[in-house]
Amino acid sequence: MRQGVLERYRELLEITPNTPMISMGEGSTPLVRSRFIENEVGCAELYFKLEGCNPSGSFKDRGMVMAVAKAIEDGSAAIMCASTGNTSASAAAYGAYCGLTTIVLVPSGDVAAGKMAQALAYHPRILVVNGTFDQALEMVRTFTQRYPVTLVNSLNPHRLEGQKTAAFEIVDDLGDAPDFLFIPVGNAGNITAYWRGFSQYADLGRAETLPRMMGYQAEGAAPIVRGEPIAEPSTVASAIRIGNPASWQQALTARDQSGGVIDSVTDDEILSAYRMLSRREGIFAEPASAASVAGVIKFSGQLDLAGKRVVCVITGSGLKDPDLATQNIDMSLQELPPELWAMEKVLEEVVQGTLSLGPKA
Amino acid sequence: MRQGVLERYRELLEITPNTPMISMGEGSTPLVRSRFIENEVGCAELYFKLEGCNPSGSFKDRGMVMAVAKAIEDGSAAIMCASTGNTSASAAAYGAYCGLTTIVLVPSGDVAAGKMAQALAYHPRILVVNGTFDQALEMVRTFTQRYPVTLVNSLNPHRLEGQKTAAFEIVDDLGDAPDFLFIPVGNAGNITAYWRGFSQYADLGRAETLPRMMGYQAEGAAPIVRGEPIAEPSTVASAIRIGNPASWQQALTARDQSGGVIDSVTDDEILSAYRMLSRREGIFAEPASAASVAGVIKFSGQLDLAGKRVVCVITGSGLKDPDLATQNIDMSLQELPPELWAMEKVLEEVVQGTLSLGPKA
Repeated sequence: MRQGVLERYRELLEITPNTPMISMGEGSTPLVRSRFIENEVGCAELYFKLEGCNPSGSFKDRGMVMAVAKAIEDGSAAIMCASTGNTSASAAAYGAYCGLTTIVLVPSGDVAAGKMAQALAYHPRILVVNGTFDQALEMVRTFTQRYPVTLVNSLNPHRLEGQKTAAFEIVDDLGDAPDFLFIPVGNAGNITAYWRGFSQYADLGRAETLPRMMGYQAEGAAPIVRGEPIAEPSTVASAIRIGNPASWQQALTARDQSGGVIDSVTDDEILSAYRMLSRREGIFAEPASAASVAGVIKFSGQLDLAGKRVVCVITGSGLKDPDLATQNIDMSLQELPPELWAMEKVLEEVVQGTLSLGPKA
Repeated sequence: MRQGVLERYRELLEITPNTPMISMGEGSTPLVRSRFIENEVGCAELYFKLEGCNPSGSFKDRGMVMAVAKAIEDGSAAIMCASTGNTSASAAAYGAYCGLTTIVLVPSGDVAAGKMAQALAYHPRILVVNGTFDQALEMVRTFTQRYPVTLVNSLNPHRLEGQKTAAFEIVDDLGDAPDFLFIPVGNAGNITAYWRGFSQYADLGRAETLPRMMGYQAEGAAPIVRGEPIAEPSTVASAIRIGNPASWQQALTARDQSGGVIDSVTDDEILSAYRMLSRREGIFAEPASAASVAGVIKFSGQLDLAGKRVVCVITGSGLKDPDLATQNIDMSLQELPPELWAMEKVLEEVVQGTLSLGPKA
């Protein structure tokens, strides 16, 4: 049977005889070959790592399964996080699966029912804090230090341990590390985890090379690029709307050790990549995921990628943010009566055999 | 590398040397062990087949990859379907990936931007037909017979061929067929495809047994149970809101050959199962998927499942229908000031160490 990440990479994680080997089917996500952007950027091979195919729809499940297993091992009866997005959905899913009380703190300005629909479905205990995200996170830190409740924000070290398994899978699939890994950077935990995974595999001799780590922030939320925290980060890509990344130093280490780059892309570049991904590659991603694709497009204008093997991390499903999808689409729906002649008129190019787009076999 | 369904089951599908072996990472979806409902219904083992982990978020991708590959093999430059839901999303995704023109016909009464957000993202050509779904489908049938455009509704025989691979995977994972397969029934294509897959594996000696096929329709859309088409089918589970199933006879054959059942569940039973799935198993499914779970709960009240191995098919992601998630949740969000004392007061049971729910290790 397809194994979850704890079982699949058991010997490379901190699994003890007392760690419950839970799995909701996380990990072993598809690595899909590009059929359009690969040619656009002129590299030898371009792959997308589809983390939206995880059970709660984002890469967070890899770290959450590890954090929740460790919480159970440590005798904790409850988990807690501050989040309005993928983290709360993943925590609430694994909490529900394991029968743990899950408590989610949400800053009051960020309570959008649509965005929270998924987390709400799992029915965690939700507390709306009349304050900022930073205040909510600080409350979680203090409370979990004082009471037997496990913090599962990315400050929990098991989260990044679990997330490194995505790098293992890429090497297992390709036979070696790619030349470049493009990845969105928000809180900077994921770039840190991937670098740890690639490095560990190289140390073990399971990979011969290491990739250059190419992290991309949104221009309005680019503290690492600017070299200072951003008080009010702003970007359409909500999952990377972070002003003061928790893993800032580790991200710089990943960049410097790998000879990589941490750069920014504009919201226009992100939205352009978002549309290109769905319209040309058939991949409906959350906007933050498109930052990695915007990054490879921007970078390809600066440096020659000829002969290179490239992986872009697609962190989550576009279904997480359906409103953005409809906002960014020209809803030019053609109406017609239910008659064949009407359809023949509208689809004239098909009828006349001059349809321009052909298949790519 | 993880293979798509065409590669993985190549010798059991109609693959020729000219079939393009496309894949967007469909198939090889998780089979997750139940941790709550298994005990509730009293069977030996209960598993959920999470088809929402497919790239477009539903089981349709298995059949669509086959239909689109065959369309390309046959030299078609365009694909066409009538749909407002999972079929149009899957068709538009694979159409975009392969550079095929995708034309989606939508009956005007059914154009809800939220529900269509995903299909819209892939930017197919959308024609709104001022008529019923049946009229739209009839236009697709006539048009695709007359012009070189491939119909990819489930009338396309390659669709069911691709969908049978889910049955192969269940046997590959469990080592044999389960005793019971519970599955939602709308157009009845999926129950037909699963039965074909289980039967083929048994014929080949890859499975020793065959499952009893347990199909569940929604009470307001239960033509097979009633024995006559329903003019105006009605149910909260939109993906199985079908009044005159295309694979009606094949579904009866699957039922009768397997010693199974085709029964109905009420919308209340579906919504109760939908909530139980997310709150107790951490699985956020589309409402139609919950019909299979409602079915096993209903059936367990009629017959003893002791010692039996059961699989429930979870056809698609709950992210497909976020409005329903928020409608069906009591949004009892507690507000509090950003102060530790306020949280200690609200979480009194944690502070006093009397938290009732414990982990299931």
